[in-house]
Amino acid sequence: MSGKIQVYHQRSERQTKACRFTQRAVAMSSSSAMLRILIKGGKVVNDDCTQEADVYIENGIIQQVGKELMIPGGAKVIDASGKLVLPGGIDTSVHLEETFMNAVTADDYYSGTKAALAGGTTMVIGHVLPERNESLLEAYEKCRSSADSKSCCDYALHVGVTWWGPKVQAEMEKLVREKGVNSFQMFMAYKDTFMLRDSELFQALQHCKDIGAVARVHAENGELVAEGAKEVLELGISGPEGIEISRPEELEAEATHRAIIIANRAHCPIYLVNVSSMSAGDVVASAKMQGKVVHGETTTAHAVLNGMQYYHQDWCHAAAHVTVPPLRLDSSTPNYLLSLLGNDTLNVVASDHRPFTIKQKAMGKDDFTKIPCGLPGIQDRMSVIWEKGVIGGKIDENRFVAVTSSNAAKIYNLYPRKGRIIPGADADVVVWDPEGSKARQ
Amino acid sequence: MSGKIQVYHQRSERQTKACRFTQRAVAMSSSSAMLRILIKGGKVVNDDCTQEADVYIENGIIQQVGKELMIPGGAKVIDASGKLVLPGGIDTSVHLEETFMNAVTADDYYSGTKAALAGGTTMVIGHVLPERNESLLEAYEKCRSSADSKSCCDYALHVGVTWWGPKVQAEMEKLVREKGVNSFQMFMAYKDTFMLRDSELFQALQHCKDIGAVARVHAENGELVAEGAKEVLELGISGPEGIEISRPEELEAEATHRAIIIANRAHCPIYLVNVSSMSAGDVVASAKMQGKVVHGETTTAHAVLNGMQYYHQDWCHAAAHVTVPPLRLDSSTPNYLLSLLGNDTLNVVASDHRPFTIKQKAMGKDDFTKIPCGLPGIQDRMSVIWEKGVIGGKIDENRFVAVTSSNAAKIYNLYPRKGRIIPGADADVVVWDPEGSKARQ
Amino acid sequence: MSGKIQVYHQRSERQTKACRFTQRAVAMSSSSAMLRILIKGGKVVNDDCTQEADVYIENGIIQQVGKELMIPGGAKVIDASGKLVLPGGIDTSVHLEETFMNAVTADDYYSGTKAALAGGTTMVIGHVLPERNESLLEAYEKCRSSADSKSCCDYALHVGVTWWGPKVQAEMEKLVREKGVNSFQMFMAYKDTFMLRDSELFQALQHCKDIGAVARVHAENGELVAEGAKEVLELGISGPEGIEISRPEELEAEATHRAIIIANRAHCPIYLVNVSSMSAGDVVASAKMQGKVVHGETTTAHAVLNGMQYYHQDWCHAAAHVTVPPLRLDSSTPNYLLSLLGNDTLNVVASDHRPFTIKQKAMGKDDFTKIPCGLPGIQDRMSVIWEKGVIGGKIDENRFVAVTSSNAAKIYNLYPRKGRIIPGADADVVVWDPEGSKARQ
Amino acid sequence: MSGKIQVYHQRSERQTKACRFTQRAVAMSSSSAMLRILIKGGKVVNDDCTQEADVYIENGIIQQVGKELMIPGGAKVIDASGKLVLPGGIDTSVHLEETFMNAVTADDYYSGTKAALAGGTTMVIGHVLPERNESLLEAYEKCRSSADSKSCCDYALHVGVTWWGPKVQAEMEKLVREKGVNSFQMFMAYKDTFMLRDSELFQALQHCKDIGAVARVHAENGELVAEGAKEVLELGISGPEGIEISRPEELEAEATHRAIIIANRAHCPIYLVNVSSMSAGDVVASAKMQGKVVHGETTTAHAVLNGMQYYHQDWCHAAAHVTVPPLRLDSSTPNYLLSLLGNDTLNVVASDHRPFTIKQKAMGKDDFTKIPCGLPGIQDRMSVIWEKGVIGGKIDENRFVAVTSSNAAKIYNLYPRKGRIIPGADADVVVWDPEGSKARQ
Repeated sequence: MSGKIQVYHQRSERQTKACRFTQRAVAMSSSSAMLRILIKGGKVVNDDCTQEADVYIENGIIQQVGKELMIPGGAKVIDASGKLVLPGGIDTSVHLEETFMNAVTADDYYSGTKAALAGGTTMVIGHVLPERNESLLEAYEKCRSSADSKSCCDYALHVGVTWWGPKVQAEMEKLVREKGVNSFQMFMAYKDTFMLRDSELFQALQHCKDIGAVARVHAENGELVAEGAKEVLELGISGPEGIEISRPEELEAEATHRAIIIANRAHCPIYLVNVSSMSAGDVVASAKMQGKVVHGETTTAHAVLNGMQYYHQDWCHAAAHVTVPPLRLDSSTPNYLLSLLGNDTLNVVASDHRPFTIKQKAMGKDDFTKIPCGLPGIQDRMSVIWEKGVIGGKIDENRFVAVTSSNAAKIYNLYPRKGRIIPGADADVVVWDPEGSKARQ
Repeated sequence: MSGKIQVYHQRSERQTKACRFTQRAVAMSSSSAMLRILIKGGKVVNDDCTQEADVYIENGIIQQVGKELMIPGGAKVIDASGKLVLPGGIDTSVHLEETFMNAVTADDYYSGTKAALAGGTTMVIGHVLPERNESLLEAYEKCRSSADSKSCCDYALHVGVTWWGPKVQAEMEKLVREKGVNSFQMFMAYKDTFMLRDSELFQALQHCKDIGAVARVHAENGELVAEGAKEVLELGISGPEGIEISRPEELEAEATHRAIIIANRAHCPIYLVNVSSMSAGDVVASAKMQGKVVHGETTTAHAVLNGMQYYHQDWCHAAAHVTVPPLRLDSSTPNYLLSLLGNDTLNVVASDHRPFTIKQKAMGKDDFTKIPCGLPGIQDRMSVIWEKGVIGGKIDENRFVAVTSSNAAKIYNLYPRKGRIIPGADADVVVWDPEGSKARQ
Repeated sequence: MSGKIQVYHQRSERQTKACRFTQRAVAMSSSSAMLRILIKGGKVVNDDCTQEADVYIENGIIQQVGKELMIPGGAKVIDASGKLVLPGGIDTSVHLEETFMNAVTADDYYSGTKAALAGGTTMVIGHVLPERNESLLEAYEKCRSSADSKSCCDYALHVGVTWWGPKVQAEMEKLVREKGVNSFQMFMAYKDTFMLRDSELFQALQHCKDIGAVARVHAENGELVAEGAKEVLELGISGPEGIEISRPEELEAEATHRAIIIANRAHCPIYLVNVSSMSAGDVVASAKMQGKVVHGETTTAHAVLNGMQYYHQDWCHAAAHVTVPPLRLDSSTPNYLLSLLGNDTLNVVASDHRPFTIKQKAMGKDDFTKIPCGLPGIQDRMSVIWEKGVIGGKIDENRFVAVTSSNAAKIYNLYPRKGRIIPGADADVVVWDPEGSKARQ
Repeated sequence: MSGKIQVYHQRSERQTKACRFTQRAVAMSSSSAMLRILIKGGKVVNDDCTQEADVYIENGIIQQVGKELMIPGGAKVIDASGKLVLPGGIDTSVHLEETFMNAVTADDYYSGTKAALAGGTTMVIGHVLPERNESLLEAYEKCRSSADSKSCCDYALHVGVTWWGPKVQAEMEKLVREKGVNSFQMFMAYKDTFMLRDSELFQALQHCKDIGAVARVHAENGELVAEGAKEVLELGISGPEGIEISRPEELEAEATHRAIIIANRAHCPIYLVNVSSMSAGDVVASAKMQGKVVHGETTTAHAVLNGMQYYHQDWCHAAAHVTVPPLRLDSSTPNYLLSLLGNDTLNVVASDHRPFTIKQKAMGKDDFTKIPCGLPGIQDRMSVIWEKGVIGGKIDENRFVAVTSSNAAKIYNLYPRKGRIIPGADADVVVWDPEGSKARQ
C-alpha cells in the first residue's frame, strides 16, 4: 500500500502531547513549527471538483493552493505529478483497545492510528463503551488518558449511551460542554447489555438534540435478535453461519425504520451506523426523500463482502468475518451499498475496525453468539473503497473524497478545517497514486 | 333505520340456550324448527355478484336461491321487490359488558346484540380481556357464562393475550382445542397493562401459527405513546385533543411495520386491528404487495370521522370521540381508508363498539389519558358504511358485502356457512332498502 | 394429461350450430337436450372456497350442488372421489387461424379448441386483427364465419383497434350493440402496423368507456422498440436473443405507466395484456394501490419461462420462444409474476396461444425481427399453472380457479354463468386430479 | 430590493465587447483592468459551509479569501459587516428577445440582464429556439449578434432541438465544437411545433451523449395536452383556468417518467426543466434513488405560487400567471417543490423569465391556448427563494447558494470559476443583507 499513498499528516512524524479542540470535537494536531512542504504537480481532489494545483503547507496548516504559487524558500518539495492530492481520510468508527464480548481488540491507539496513517486516514473516531451503571465521564477519561499519549493522528471519541438515567443525562451534557465530545452512540441491539428500550432511546435522542450532539444509532431489533439466536442454537446451528440466520436483514430494516420515527418524534437528526443491507438502505433513502434529516454510515466490510463467507469450510475464515449486523447473504448487497454511497443515501463509509485474533474468535467455537464480533479495516478502508467504488465505476474521485472524508468532517463539525484541501485547513493531506496497487509493491 | 333494514336472522325472535360450534368459532344459531320463509322479488347480493333471485329458508337454513323456486306450502312470504338481500353483517370487534380503563361498557350482550340485529348485523365477535396473570380460560368461561344467556344473535369471542408465559401458552391451546376459540388479540400499546414486548409478541405469534389461530394485533408503539402522553400533559394539554397529539399516526405506522416483520419471522399470518391512518394503511398495502399474508381491519368511526372532533368546544362532544388509535387530524383520512376498503388493502370494517356514558368519560375531565376510550357503532356500522362507502362512490354493493360480512366469514373460518347467500348457509339474511334512509323514518 | 383431467363441457361431445349470446359476449353453448350427469364424491373448488359436494347437470346447465342430492333417475354417474371439480378454464387470449407477421397460426378453431378442451379450458377468446384501413366489421364477420362451424367450445372474440378514424369508432359501437362484442385491443407497439399514437389511444379508450367495452392494451414503447431493433441489428446481432436486447423490460414498464395515465385521463378502466416483467408488474401494482381500475393479464409462457431460452445453442429452440414482449432475462421474473397472480396484482393468466411451425419461424433466420412471434399453450395452460403455481406453493386451489377462470368470467361479463360451479351456471366443469401428472400417463 | 443586495459583478459597471469562453460555455466577463475591491467583515457563504472572511478582488478575479489578508493599497473597501457574501446567482433559464407563440418577450438582453444584476444574478442562460427546418447554427448566430452587444453580464445559450434530421445532428456537433455551446433543449410538449416523437428524442439524447452536451428536456405528454385542450375548449372553458384543466400534472409525471427511461436507453444523463408538480418531483426522486443521472430544475413561480391564480376574477391577473407546465391546483405543491430543492431531488431553481405585456396576453382572451405562456422573474428569483426557502425554513443559506448558483455552475461546467467564492474564481460576488427586505426600501 505504501507505494500508492503518501501521507503528509504532520503528526505522523512525531507525537505531541498537545491537545486542541477543533470546534467541539476532540482533536489533536501538529505543532511541528517550521516545517514547510510544497506538494507540486498533482491534481487536488475535493468533494466538489478536481483542479490541477500545487499545495503549500506551513506549520501544519495548508497555506496556499494554486498554480505558480509564491512560496518562501526552504520548503521540502514533493513531486505529485500523475497523482491526486486528497484531504486525509476520516475514519468515523474504529475500536481501539476496547473491551467487547470478553475480549480486548487487538490494536491500541498507537498501532491502530499508525495503520490508519499508512492507509491514508489522518483522523479516527474511537468509541467509549461504558458498562451498565458505569460513569460515562470516567469511562471517557480512562480512554483519553491512554489514547492521548499513543495516538499518531488526530482522534475524537464517540461516547456510548449504554444505559439510561438522570446521571447519564447529566454526564452527556458535561461531556459536550466541558470535554468537547459531540457524538453519542445508542444501541437497539445487544439485549441485556447495551440495548435501550424505545422510551429510553427517545429520551436519549431528545437530549442529544437539546445539547446539540450527533446521535449515532445501531439499529437492529435486539429482542428478535435474541429470539433468533435461541432458535438457531436450538436447531443445532452453532457455527458462524448462525450469525446471519439469526439476525437477518429484516430485523435491521425494521429497527432502522423505528429509529427514524423515534428520532422524528424527538425532533433530532439521526445518524445510522453500520447500515449493512439493501432493505435498511431503502428505509434510509425513503426517509431522506420525505425530508427527514438522516445520515447513513456503512462499513468497508459490508460494502465489499457478502455473507457467503460464513459458509467457508475453514471455521477460522468464517469466524473472522463475524460482525454485526452480519454480512448479508444476498450477493447484490455490496454493490447496492456502493450505489447508495454514490447517490448520497449513505454519506460515510467507516472501517468499523475491530480486530480480534483467531484465538479470541475461538471463544465461540461451539456457539456463534460467543464469537467476538468485528473485522479489521482501519488501514485498507480507503484503498478498498477506491478499488471497488472508483475503479468499479460506482463513484468518482470527488464522491470518493466525500464518503471517506468531507462528509464526516461536515457532520462532526470539523469542516472545512478537515475534509477539504483549502488554505487555512489542517495539513491532513494524502498524495494518492490512482495507478498504484498493493500488488505492485 | 328500521325502514331501511329488515333482518331475518331467526334467533332474533326468541333466544335459545342451544350452543353450536361452527367449525372452530363459538357460534350459536337458530333452532326454530318449522319456520318457513320465502323472500321474494329482491336482488341477492353476494361479494362476487348480484342476481335477481328469491331465497327460501327453512329450519334456519337457506334452502334455495333462484327464480321460480318450487317450495312447500305454508311459507311466510316477504316481498323484497326493489330491495337487496344481503348476507347478515358480521361485526368482528365489539366490546360488551367489558371492563376497560376502570369502566364497564354501557352495553351487555343482550342490548348490544339487539342493536346489532336492528342494524343488519347477525353475528358479532366480542373480546375477553384477562387481567395480567389472570387465567385466560377462566376469563373466557366467565364471559361465556354471562353472554350465552343474553346474546340475541350468534357470537364468538377473541381472547386477549394480555400477558405472556408458559401458562398462557398452554391455555391458548386448550381454548382452541376444547372451546372452539380461533382468534387471539395481542397489544403493542397499553404499556404496563396489556402491552407485550417484541420477544413476547414473537412467541405469541409463533404459537398462534402452531395452533392455527387468527392473530389479531393492535399496533401502536406503546413506549412512545407513554412518552407522548407524559410530554403532552407536561405542556399543560389535558383535554381530549391530547389523545391525537400524544399518539400521532407515525407511531401506528411504525408499530404496524414492526408487527408485520415480527409476524414474518414467526411465519404467522397477521390481522391488524383498528387501522386508523393513511400511513398505517400504506404499510399494510406494501406488505401485501410483497406477498405477505396480512389482513387489515378498520372501524366505522375511523372510516368516516376525523380528529377535528377533539377540538370541539363542547368537552362532552370531544370526549365522546376519544378512542385508540385516535381519529386522525388529516381530513383526507376517512376517504383514504374507505378507498383501502375498496381496493382490498383493508379487508374488514368493524364497529369496535365500546360505548361509555358521559359520566364515565368524565373520569378524564382533567387528564385525557383517563378518559375511557371508545365509541359506539354496533347498530349503525352497516348503514354508515353504505352511506359513505356505497352512496359515496368508494365501493359497490358487492364490495360492501365483502367488507361487512364475507371477508370476516372467510378469515374466521365461518364461510360459506356465513357471509354468503347460498343454499346450505345459515339463514343470516338482511333485506336492505337501498333507497331507505334513517331520516325518512 | 388426459389422466389428470376429465372435461365435462357438453359441447365437446358434438358440435352445434346454435349460437347464443351470454350477456354481451359472443358465446356458444350446448343444446344436448336430455343429457344428465352426476359428478359424485369430489371437492368443488370455486374461487372463494372449497366444499365436498356432488354436482348434478341437466341440459347443459348445473342444476344442483351439494351433498345427498335428490336427482332424477337415469343420470350418468361420474366418480370424482379424490378429485377436484373446477369451473372450466377460460383462456382469454388465443390466436387461431390468424395471419400475423406474414404467417398463419398453425391451429384453426377446430384443432385449437379441441386442444383447449383436452387441457381443461372450456371457453376461449380469440382475436380479430383488421389490417390498416380494413373494416372492423368485415374482419369480424370473416372470422365468425369460419370459427362458428369449427369451434368445439364456447368462444368469443376481441376485436383489434389497429388503426383509428371515425369509421373505426362507428364500427366499434356497432360491434358492441349488434354483435355482442365486448372487448377491444389496442397496441402501443408494432410501429407502422398496429401501433396507435397516444392521442389515438386516448380517443379509443374514451370510446370504449362510452360504449362500455373492455379496453385491452398491449403496452410497449413501439417507437423505442423500433429504435432498439435497428441498433441491435446494426451491432450485428441477428439471432433470437436480439428480441430481448432490443425491447427490454423498461420499455414495457414505461408504456404500461403511460397507458394507465392515458386511461385515467379517459376515465376508462384498462386491461393490460401480456404483462411480462417485474417492473411492469410493479407499475400495475402501484396503480391499483392508488385506486385505479386496472386489470392485468400475463401468459403461461411468461409465468414459467425466462429469456435464457434465447441463448440456447439450437436456433430452433431459441426461435420457438420468440414472443412479444419477450421472455425476460432476469430469472426471478417467472416466480415474481406467479406471486403477482397470487396477490391479485395480476388477475388472469392466458395462454396467448400463437403456434408457428419451425418453417414459419425460419423466415427470420437472418433477422430476428422477422421471426413470427408466439408460443403455443392452449392445451397446457392449466396444468402448467397448477404445477408451478399450486404445487410450487405460489397460489392455492381457489386462487388457481380465480386466475384461470372466474376472474376472466367477471371481467368479460360472463359471471356467474361461467367461472363458478353453482346451480344455474353453464355446465363448463372440469374434474381435476390433483395427484395426476402428465408423466404418469 | 437594492437595499438588500449589492452586486459586485464588474461587468455591470460598463459593458465590454470582449467575449471569452469558459470551458465550453459561452461566457463573457470583465476586463476592467486595475479595479481592486476588498469586501470586508462579511460572512462568505458557499454551498458547503459558511466562514467569516474578507474577499479581495483584482482584475475581475477573486484573489484572496480569508481573515487578515495582506492586500495592496488603493483598493476600494466595502463594508459587509452583518451581511453575507455569496457567489453571484446563475439563472439557467431566461427568455430574452425571444419570439414565442406569436409574441416577442418584453425584455431584451440589455433590460433583462440589468434586472438580473439588480437581483443578485450575475450570469444568465438564454434560449435559441429555431423554427422547424431553420438552421440551428443560423438561429444561434442571430441571437449572439444581438445579445453580445447588449448583455450586461455573462451569458450563455441553450439551443433548442425543435426538429430532427441529419442536418440538425451535424449542426449540434458544430455548435459544441466551434461555438462553445454545451446544452440543448428538447420538447415533449408543443405538438405540431417543437415536439419531438419518442424516436427522435431518443436519437437526440444519444447524440447529446456522444458530443458531451447537457440534454435539457421539457416533459409533458404533448399529444394528451392537445387532446385536453380540445376537450376543455369544447366544454366551453376558454379562460386562463383552462391551462391547468387541460394539462394536469399526471401528464407531466408521465412524460417525466418516459423521458428518464428514454434517456436511460440512450445512456445519456438527463436534465428536466420546469419540474412543476409533486408527482413529477416524485418521479425524479425515485429515478435518482435507482442511481440514474437525472437533474431537476424548477422555476421561481412554481416554487412559490399555486394554480388558484387562474381562478382570479380579474382576467389580467389570471392570464399573467399562464405558463407551462401550469401552476398546480394542489396548494401543497410550492412547499413540496421547495422541500425537493432542500433534499437535492431538484438541483436548480431558474426564473424561466418570459415576460409578456397584458396586451400580448390578451391575444388569448377568447381562447386560453393562445395566451403567450410565461411569467417574469429574472430580478426577483433570488430574493423570492430566500424569502420562501431560507426564511420559510425549507433550506439553509448554503443550500440557497447551491440551488441558485453552485449546482448550475457544476452542471454547466463553469465550476469553480463560477458558483464559488474562492481564489481564482470570477468576481461574480453578491453582498446579501439577510435582514433586508424589499418593503423596507
